[in-house]
Amino acid sequence: MLSIGRREMKKVPALRGRMIVNLFFEASTRTRFSFETAQKWLSADSLNFAAKGSSVEKGESLLDTARNLQAMSPDLIVIRHGTAGVPHFLARNLKAGVVNAGDGAHEHPTQALLDALTVRRHFGRLSELTVAITGDILHSRVVRSNIWLLTKMGAKVRVCGPPTLLPPRIAEMGVEATTDFDAALEDADVVMMLRMQLERQGSSFFPSTREYFKRYGLTAARLARARSHAVVLHPGPMNRGVEISSEVADSPRSLILEQVSNGVAVRMAVLYLLLTGHPWEGDA
Amino acid sequence: MLSIGRREMKKVPALRGRMIVNLFFEASTRTRFSFETAQKWLSADSLNFAAKGSSVEKGESLLDTARNLQAMSPDLIVIRHGTAGVPHFLARNLKAGVVNAGDGAHEHPTQALLDALTVRRHFGRLSELTVAITGDILHSRVVRSNIWLLTKMGAKVRVCGPPTLLPPRIAEMGVEATTDFDAALEDADVVMMLRMQLERQGSSFFPSTREYFKRYGLTAARLARARSHAVVLHPGPMNRGVEISSEVADSPRSLILEQVSNGVAVRMAVLYLLLTGHPWEGDA
Amino acid sequence: MLSIGRREMKKVPALRGRMIVNLFFEASTRTRFSFETAQKWLSADSLNFAAKGSSVEKGESLLDTARNLQAMSPDLIVIRHGTAGVPHFLARNLKAGVVNAGDGAHEHPTQALLDALTVRRHFGRLSELTVAITGDILHSRVVRSNIWLLTKMGAKVRVCGPPTLLPPRIAEMGVEATTDFDAALEDADVVMMLRMQLERQGSSFFPSTREYFKRYGLTAARLARARSHAVVLHPGPMNRGVEISSEVADSPRSLILEQVSNGVAVRMAVLYLLLTGHPWEGDA
Repeated sequence: MLSIGRREMKKVPALRGRMIVNLFFEASTRTRFSFETAQKWLSADSLNFAAKGSSVEKGESLLDTARNLQAMSPDLIVIRHGTAGVPHFLARNLKAGVVNAGDGAHEHPTQALLDALTVRRHFGRLSELTVAITGDILHSRVVRSNIWLLTKMGAKVRVCGPPTLLPPRIAEMGVEATTDFDAALEDADVVMMLRMQLERQGSSFFPSTREYFKRYGLTAARLARARSHAVVLHPGPMNRGVEISSEVADSPRSLILEQVSNGVAVRMAVLYLLLTGHPWEGDA
Repeated sequence: MLSIGRREMKKVPALRGRMIVNLFFEASTRTRFSFETAQKWLSADSLNFAAKGSSVEKGESLLDTARNLQAMSPDLIVIRHGTAGVPHFLARNLKAGVVNAGDGAHEHPTQALLDALTVRRHFGRLSELTVAITGDILHSRVVRSNIWLLTKMGAKVRVCGPPTLLPPRIAEMGVEATTDFDAALEDADVVMMLRMQLERQGSSFFPSTREYFKRYGLTAARLARARSHAVVLHPGPMNRGVEISSEVADSPRSLILEQVSNGVAVRMAVLYLLLTGHPWEGDA
Repeated sequence: MLSIGRREMKKVPALRGRMIVNLFFEASTRTRFSFETAQKWLSADSLNFAAKGSSVEKGESLLDTARNLQAMSPDLIVIRHGTAGVPHFLARNLKAGVVNAGDGAHEHPTQALLDALTVRRHFGRLSELTVAITGDILHSRVVRSNIWLLTKMGAKVRVCGPPTLLPPRIAEMGVEATTDFDAALEDADVVMMLRMQLERQGSSFFPSTREYFKRYGLTAARLARARSHAVVLHPGPMNRGVEISSEVADSPRSLILEQVSNGVAVRMAVLYLLLTGHPWEGDA
């Protein structure tokens, strides 16, 4: 899948005549574009739906909206929704396949898959790596999906954030939890920074972005505490100067843009596998 | 056309290289998706236009906008607009074909066609059936198009609603009119419920949704007054508990989701016929 | 390219498998549709992005947004932005090609190309023609691009507008400048009227639209001052009765809708040339 994006002719007929509906109930640029790009490269047809301007405004229930879409015979529904559990609810109630493109603070599985692909392409494995994930652990769907995937694949996961943004029982997911950023970085192979939701500033979660950057922002000096071969990931969009310095974000140790490229390939793989029932074996 | 939607490969090259512009000046999910799906399955190219973000905001007249679109050589324009008569106005002034996807409280012809297809597929005919249409008759474009089509095809049409929502001269269209829901259902073969515009509540049209449901909501007990073989239609989106109970909406007698599936096929047929000048004869 | 739009089958496989991202940070109907139509006729894939609902709202910098898009391997980015210089900034910082679809009051190069094509198709040449451009010269990106192109091709350019909307040093661009509309029209072969930004009324630029029309509106009487063979251009959307009368806009001397048709062909040519490195030589 990765090689298709490097060709001049970025298109294989693998999913020709398949219809995929993209339901984005929350704003998104990169995830929506990533799924749409994956669909076009595989020659699938796409219908795009945003919450604004839809029947949802007319008070129709989500299930009725989804059943109506299903009656138009899509092969797959890709959904992002602000409420945890909506994709699973639809998957249980629809015949069409459902891909979770992010549901509330719950999960974002294709993000975890692309993060894993990025790390594995770099280190050749996931097992026995130490991954430090730092930021708003409480509200992050990215961190939850990453914990499931990374621990299953044998990586050691540490999560780190201010006490107000660290769920008390997070350790039950099989991870170490700490509020000490320096301790979290110790011996880390992978440093994953999470996006700080600036719109939460003003609430009591953290005092100021300056204060946050001082305690939890990834600078080059901070990164020196991790292993010398450590790489940096961020799901985007980045807040430069809040959770990450530009010096680190733009350094050779940053795999942030590689994550984006890998995201298209991972989504192609997910779509292909779900629609054909078997993994891609090349188009040669 | 219906069979194409049941294939794994939902695509025929029938309208390849034809450009269709979808102009939606009002919010719509199912009608817009239905037309877009029809276009993709026929391999036509689509351009999508929503009122927000268009030159209409810059004060250009609708006719100038339409003439400009036409100058880009689309083969067909599909338009939904809040003002009655806009599609006919454009059709008179443009060379490109125009399909009415709903104009104000005036007409919604492809909805009537899909309703008719649904009924005919069920009963094998339209003639000599009694169709009871209940709800906001005054503001419904669906009912107006259905009356034209059903009476022309030999069905007997009854319309029913609260006195404030029943136009006084509606009988001149060749239908029976009544404010008595039980009388309307008597011997009906087809029970078509209309969407109650909840945003009109608070105006003087009806006292409350609870009161409305009590007098004009379709329950299983109410439906028992129609023929034992009677089927239920609704153009969607449904207000469950307002004009229809969930018990009826989800019962085997409800053809509501079949209407949605048939809608794609009907729109494929309309697009194909208008663009080629002859009906579809299969792709075998 | 022009001939493709006149065919029943409006599609050549020239750019199949190429991905083009349309980034419109400002409202646009005709330019966006024109680029999208060009892309579809050339069989390119398009991703469409509007400022609303994007990561831009989440505070990500434009460069980060663009780098992320680039990481998805688009072949070309078409951008409209409210700030002058943004397309050049992106072009310097991205590997992907960038097409300026209008940047603030700075440039709108494909508009100038389509204007030039329209004039050259009519007169057979651009050199030694006198082109009078009238309106809001100060804020117009159309006029700036036209001046570069027309003077380079040997046309004589006059710009005309109220003193408040005529930049004092505009003559340095190699054009004549005047506030006298009658003088500007004298011996003109081409009369290009600019759109008056009505939202600027109320500011001190001009007293009222009625006053503006009286002094700078193109009427048939006014047009009689130009050469008898003179033609009329307008980039659209028109304000009828403000900068141009309907009598002139709809007259045989108006090439305004031809501009729109030519716009699709010009954009096809631009996309094809940039993506293949050589001009189109037909698909025969």
